[in-house]
Amino acid sequence: MDTTVFEAHESTIRGYCRNYPTVFASASNARQVDEDGRSYIDFFAGAGVLNFGHNNPRMKEALIDFLQADGVAHSLDTYTTTKRDFVARFQEVVLAPRGMDHRMQFMGPTGSNAVEAAMKLARKATGRREIVAFSHGFHGMTLGSLAATANDAFRQWSGVPLEHIHRLPFETAPGGDTALAEYRTALQDPSSGLLPPAAFLVEPVQAEGGVNVASRDWLHEVQDLAREVGALLIFDDIQAGIGRTGTYFSFDGMGLDPDIITLAKGLGGFGTPIAMNLNKPEVDDHWSPGAHTGTFRGQGLSFVAGTVALDYFTDESFLADVLAKGERMRERLTALVREHPGLGWEVRGRGMIQALDTGDGAFAKRVQQTAFEAGLLIGPCGSGGRVIKLIPPLTIPEDDLLQGLDLLEQAIRTAREAD
Amino acid sequence: MDTTVFEAHESTIRGYCRNYPTVFASASNARQVDEDGRSYIDFFAGAGVLNFGHNNPRMKEALIDFLQADGVAHSLDTYTTTKRDFVARFQEVVLAPRGMDHRMQFMGPTGSNAVEAAMKLARKATGRREIVAFSHGFHGMTLGSLAATANDAFRQWSGVPLEHIHRLPFETAPGGDTALAEYRTALQDPSSGLLPPAAFLVEPVQAEGGVNVASRDWLHEVQDLAREVGALLIFDDIQAGIGRTGTYFSFDGMGLDPDIITLAKGLGGFGTPIAMNLNKPEVDDHWSPGAHTGTFRGQGLSFVAGTVALDYFTDESFLADVLAKGERMRERLTALVREHPGLGWEVRGRGMIQALDTGDGAFAKRVQQTAFEAGLLIGPCGSGGRVIKLIPPLTIPEDDLLQGLDLLEQAIRTAREAD
Amino acid sequence: MDTTVFEAHESTIRGYCRNYPTVFASASNARQVDEDGRSYIDFFAGAGVLNFGHNNPRMKEALIDFLQADGVAHSLDTYTTTKRDFVARFQEVVLAPRGMDHRMQFMGPTGSNAVEAAMKLARKATGRREIVAFSHGFHGMTLGSLAATANDAFRQWSGVPLEHIHRLPFETAPGGDTALAEYRTALQDPSSGLLPPAAFLVEPVQAEGGVNVASRDWLHEVQDLAREVGALLIFDDIQAGIGRTGTYFSFDGMGLDPDIITLAKGLGGFGTPIAMNLNKPEVDDHWSPGAHTGTFRGQGLSFVAGTVALDYFTDESFLADVLAKGERMRERLTALVREHPGLGWEVRGRGMIQALDTGDGAFAKRVQQTAFEAGLLIGPCGSGGRVIKLIPPLTIPEDDLLQGLDLLEQAIRTAREAD
Amino acid sequence: MDTTVFEAHESTIRGYCRNYPTVFASASNARQVDEDGRSYIDFFAGAGVLNFGHNNPRMKEALIDFLQADGVAHSLDTYTTTKRDFVARFQEVVLAPRGMDHRMQFMGPTGSNAVEAAMKLARKATGRREIVAFSHGFHGMTLGSLAATANDAFRQWSGVPLEHIHRLPFETAPGGDTALAEYRTALQDPSSGLLPPAAFLVEPVQAEGGVNVASRDWLHEVQDLAREVGALLIFDDIQAGIGRTGTYFSFDGMGLDPDIITLAKGLGGFGTPIAMNLNKPEVDDHWSPGAHTGTFRGQGLSFVAGTVALDYFTDESFLADVLAKGERMRERLTALVREHPGLGWEVRGRGMIQALDTGDGAFAKRVQQTAFEAGLLIGPCGSGGRVIKLIPPLTIPEDDLLQGLDLLEQAIRTAREAD
Repeated sequence: MDTTVFEAHESTIRGYCRNYPTVFASASNARQVDEDGRSYIDFFAGAGVLNFGHNNPRMKEALIDFLQADGVAHSLDTYTTTKRDFVARFQEVVLAPRGMDHRMQFMGPTGSNAVEAAMKLARKATGRREIVAFSHGFHGMTLGSLAATANDAFRQWSGVPLEHIHRLPFETAPGGDTALAEYRTALQDPSSGLLPPAAFLVEPVQAEGGVNVASRDWLHEVQDLAREVGALLIFDDIQAGIGRTGTYFSFDGMGLDPDIITLAKGLGGFGTPIAMNLNKPEVDDHWSPGAHTGTFRGQGLSFVAGTVALDYFTDESFLADVLAKGERMRERLTALVREHPGLGWEVRGRGMIQALDTGDGAFAKRVQQTAFEAGLLIGPCGSGGRVIKLIPPLTIPEDDLLQGLDLLEQAIRTAREAD
Repeated sequence: MDTTVFEAHESTIRGYCRNYPTVFASASNARQVDEDGRSYIDFFAGAGVLNFGHNNPRMKEALIDFLQADGVAHSLDTYTTTKRDFVARFQEVVLAPRGMDHRMQFMGPTGSNAVEAAMKLARKATGRREIVAFSHGFHGMTLGSLAATANDAFRQWSGVPLEHIHRLPFETAPGGDTALAEYRTALQDPSSGLLPPAAFLVEPVQAEGGVNVASRDWLHEVQDLAREVGALLIFDDIQAGIGRTGTYFSFDGMGLDPDIITLAKGLGGFGTPIAMNLNKPEVDDHWSPGAHTGTFRGQGLSFVAGTVALDYFTDESFLADVLAKGERMRERLTALVREHPGLGWEVRGRGMIQALDTGDGAFAKRVQQTAFEAGLLIGPCGSGGRVIKLIPPLTIPEDDLLQGLDLLEQAIRTAREAD
Repeated sequence: MDTTVFEAHESTIRGYCRNYPTVFASASNARQVDEDGRSYIDFFAGAGVLNFGHNNPRMKEALIDFLQADGVAHSLDTYTTTKRDFVARFQEVVLAPRGMDHRMQFMGPTGSNAVEAAMKLARKATGRREIVAFSHGFHGMTLGSLAATANDAFRQWSGVPLEHIHRLPFETAPGGDTALAEYRTALQDPSSGLLPPAAFLVEPVQAEGGVNVASRDWLHEVQDLAREVGALLIFDDIQAGIGRTGTYFSFDGMGLDPDIITLAKGLGGFGTPIAMNLNKPEVDDHWSPGAHTGTFRGQGLSFVAGTVALDYFTDESFLADVLAKGERMRERLTALVREHPGLGWEVRGRGMIQALDTGDGAFAKRVQQTAFEAGLLIGPCGSGGRVIKLIPPLTIPEDDLLQGLDLLEQAIRTAREAD
Repeated sequence: MDTTVFEAHESTIRGYCRNYPTVFASASNARQVDEDGRSYIDFFAGAGVLNFGHNNPRMKEALIDFLQADGVAHSLDTYTTTKRDFVARFQEVVLAPRGMDHRMQFMGPTGSNAVEAAMKLARKATGRREIVAFSHGFHGMTLGSLAATANDAFRQWSGVPLEHIHRLPFETAPGGDTALAEYRTALQDPSSGLLPPAAFLVEPVQAEGGVNVASRDWLHEVQDLAREVGALLIFDDIQAGIGRTGTYFSFDGMGLDPDIITLAKGLGGFGTPIAMNLNKPEVDDHWSPGAHTGTFRGQGLSFVAGTVALDYFTDESFLADVLAKGERMRERLTALVREHPGLGWEVRGRGMIQALDTGDGAFAKRVQQTAFEAGLLIGPCGSGGRVIKLIPPLTIPEDDLLQGLDLLEQAIRTAREAD
């Protein structure tokens, strides 16, 4: 393993490589192998991108075919056959069955860019400025989306004031149970000092923020309030969408009806970048052609693999399997809480995003390091990194899942012994 | 050709597809072929991304090899062998020969994100807030970079005030010859009402803004002023870099020494997304690990093709050929100005970014449409789209280049006749 | 009565003259007389300025003496004997008995300016930006103080975003009982998305906002929270201070210890403009000479009359009398609520600021108009003007007070009959 | 002289008292007398307030009469006979002869408040946000007006970013000759990155900024540009108006037609606070009643003395005398420049605001101190306080003027000797 090139020439800002101090050479489904031949079980999946595993074979084949046929790899927002296939398939598999008539908007392929576009559209459509965002929310790193991101570890780097966001506690944060009602009351009071918002921007399942799962009731309360005050409802489903929670959207089956949905990460299937918003037509009509451009909007490779990814959602057994594996993960985490009582640990999650909140960032870091040394990749999240988040590929083989959970169990024991 | 899927399900915001109303099926070097088998010469190159042509064969081979070997396609900012190859090769081919010790920072793979990161770093490093940006500059669509972008067609969509930018005219804009001197004087005056800036953000060659080429002297004046007032010098070389102007950086050979260089577009070689900033070590040291994150920072496919792309710059004949072709383009444009006298047309550019400023957006649009019908893809730019910008792949075959120029010449004649 | 000059030449913005459509010619204690000789009982006292009555005879005599002696009427912030008398007397009568070592800062003579100065100082002293202000708060009309003012009827005129304020509900507003605790919790959470504030800006008794009286416990909770999070405590006592509530400061006797107190209105005694902040020395030390200037800081006439006003507070019977009169007012308002049951009316106040919240702005306006016609001046306040606020001069003769209350009672009956 | 009370109990921010370290006891016309009986000639006139001298006898008499008659000293914006006299007289003496139909708006009695109101109105009337302000401009200390003020010595205290101002160099600053033309061109360019402004806010004669006198041509260029781009023209005549320059308005006789004029300082005549804007009816109509309130808007004493002040402008000899005295001042300053050659000194001014720019703040401070010791009050202004500004009362007796100029001459010699 030789990391001197990185140390000499890559920016100080590099981060995950400090958690996983090795050089990866190849990867397949839920396994990554480093250049020394050591194999790691991947419970991180590229921060929630690789829902279908590293080098998904069906996608790989499709990509090679596409390359060999000189498909249009880069197309801005011109029309290509590849993009048409993706759009048609997405309509067929995702939108039509749900009776959704949202339109697909492609932008620069980052989740941050998707959020920025959604914020622009909401402000334009309403003529208002403030957007409600929630504590523990994570929406990106560029100035507009960073204003909506809650974590001060990121916010402190803005260099300028982060503005035009009204912050409310998320359902699971202190005050989260009463905040919406209080905000409603305040908006009815002309002397509250508050402006009616353009939109409510909410992750139905907060991933980076510590795996906080909003209830159906609370999400309906957000939606109702948005409707009442003439604001849009934006769901940021970038990390929790595309099957992660056991349904395509994290909010499926709850009777919710967001105006804008932001997607990215798992949408491209293979780890190649893509971002897409789904806008209700009456909202989308506020756009003019070219209003929010971006060079890498048309990614042929992402369309090809993303189209393959959609096939998974026509197979009923796939999501059933996700839910079953998620249940397995949850049971094991729950057992860990029982094994280590009196520490205030909490298990949270839905489907195959499951987490153990240890309440202690230093401890979680030790767990992560110990797990890495044992051959398991996990990524702490939440305030101070105290939450151990498990987001393996949805396609992880049963054996790898169980072996990974064993390694986690052991790492936690080891880390506890060091306390 | 069937575009009904797009019309039904894609956002109103789609733009370039309106200029090129067909569905592309494949592409190779400087040619794109639509699904009806019609071939187009590409003088747009994906908005300056495809410097090495569509489906560059060397890159294609490397990508297929990489895929077949289960290379790590998506890696966040963990270390991979592929990324190491890229970093080492970039150091070897680009930095070392220039005596540069800048560090490479990868971020969410859009130019906009690169600019946002540069702005954050400059503000952090200086403790200041305002950044000087120039008229006609284009730096992206997210809130921070959009504030630096000059074109009101984009700015009007922000929905919130765009702030913390001090705007000066670019060298070639009215007042551009005296603005820097006046700004220097103002900064020396404690009653100017102006704050010392964190950075000067400048494109040595403005591409989207209308192909405005800064002189060596003016760029030195910017650099000198930045040094004098304790500000950083940021060069946005996203569209004009990576060989486009006949040198690797658009500012090569001018004795300039920017603190931060933003790169994206052509860096990945194949059209797959990547963005990278080059930060001087003393500036880069202001970052902390993870300060500006992003899901798609580690793109294996972009590293693989990007490493191949670097090979071009070890072959002396490559850039000589770029300059020769650029000269050919310029001659033909100059001839067009002579052929259509009295219209105030102007030819501008360097290397293989050459442009004809027609002063008339409606006319340029007719030229673009006529050219498209004849089988040539071009993209107007500048205020109101009045500038016909030619940015074919650097690898365009001589015949395609000449044929494309013939088509352009004819399209202009046709459009003139309609006047 | 001739108002044509005003209608022809005064701005559309004129307001109170529309409530009191006559031309006043003279005034004495709690009586104003119009040019037709009609006498009005004044329960408004110039919006809380004339605590010692119109043309207070002791002040009038002192002012005439001062004018005849060629006293320095206008002095900026140079030293004058008149100013020295005021400063020394204020120290003697107000600060020393309370063990306060606050320093007196004079600024442009408006309450708004006092608040702006306090905000600057708090931001400078803490290096922070956000200031906590409360719903229903009123702090002024200039851009900084307007950002702290809650009423949208004023805020909507700013023309630019009103920023850098964190808004919490006042104790008596919905959510006011839990807001401070929730805010404390949020500030402890690094992912709350909130910044620690520079200060809490609070009126112990909100006057314009509808006569909302904070409890001792809640004010202590604000103070404790400010201390905990390293923020300053600013009390805006502009309308409720200077004896109005039956104590010199509205928060006297509660064991509170604000860092900055803003004063204006009644401080000058006679209605001549003055504004003064009291800054704790360790806070005040953050100022540099001349940091916040203003032409009319040194008002000889205000110092002269203001010095006389301080004499009232050395006479124990004065405040006892204020409390007794206040009790009388309260009893009468309470009787009115009983007389008109089932309307949800509420009586609020302390000392001689007493109010009847009718919950109905249109009704309150009718009461005001009917009262005016009967010879009583009152001023509705609160959201939509639904609160009938009574703030007669503290020196109002018993007979005028009772007669005024009779007129109010009758006006309310008349207005009720019209319902 | 006892200043211990101030040192113990007044804020550190006190400023002018440090320049004039004595305690003034009385004042008459252009003389102030300290408590030790020492007499000072006043060339500062309360920062341009006391145009008619300290304790102007006609005003004093009127004020005493008003007090003895129990006039309405404090009236908010209700109608009073005293206010009606002022409004009618202002109309008769100032507006009618000029054919002006501007409406008078009264606000909180500071110049800063007048500017804030003008900014609000301009933003409301145009629906735009940015206001053009000029280098070296001084417009006040509250957040909105401070954003327009140019001097960093004041701006640095804001604690928050000062925004929504577009800054141009004043005519006499470097670049001032070309800035308007360049700005016009930029506003015509949709890629300038600039927004059309709501207003141009300009002092025809910058007083605090260093006595910079705009030419008729330049002011017309500002006005023409404002008209062209749909912006309002606001003249801040707070220090230079009310006769100071030898005409009532500083811009009289130039054929200019501002939309809003801000007045304060000398308007009240006696040094009692007042501020008033003159708004064109079509602009003023954008206000709603009560949109910008303020406690001390209706100042009976200021109306009374201000009405007397207007009499001066019906006497043709008064302004002729101002011009003659101004000429005398200018001659003496010009002679001083000749006496001290090679120092780059410059004389600037109009009427009885005349100044010597010494280019050296430390030197100017020495002159001020030396002059004070000799019995002359002057106030340095401009960047770093390098400009010695002379603004005696317009009513200064010839003898005092000459004696003051002698003292100044001597102080300059003394200060030069110390060099």
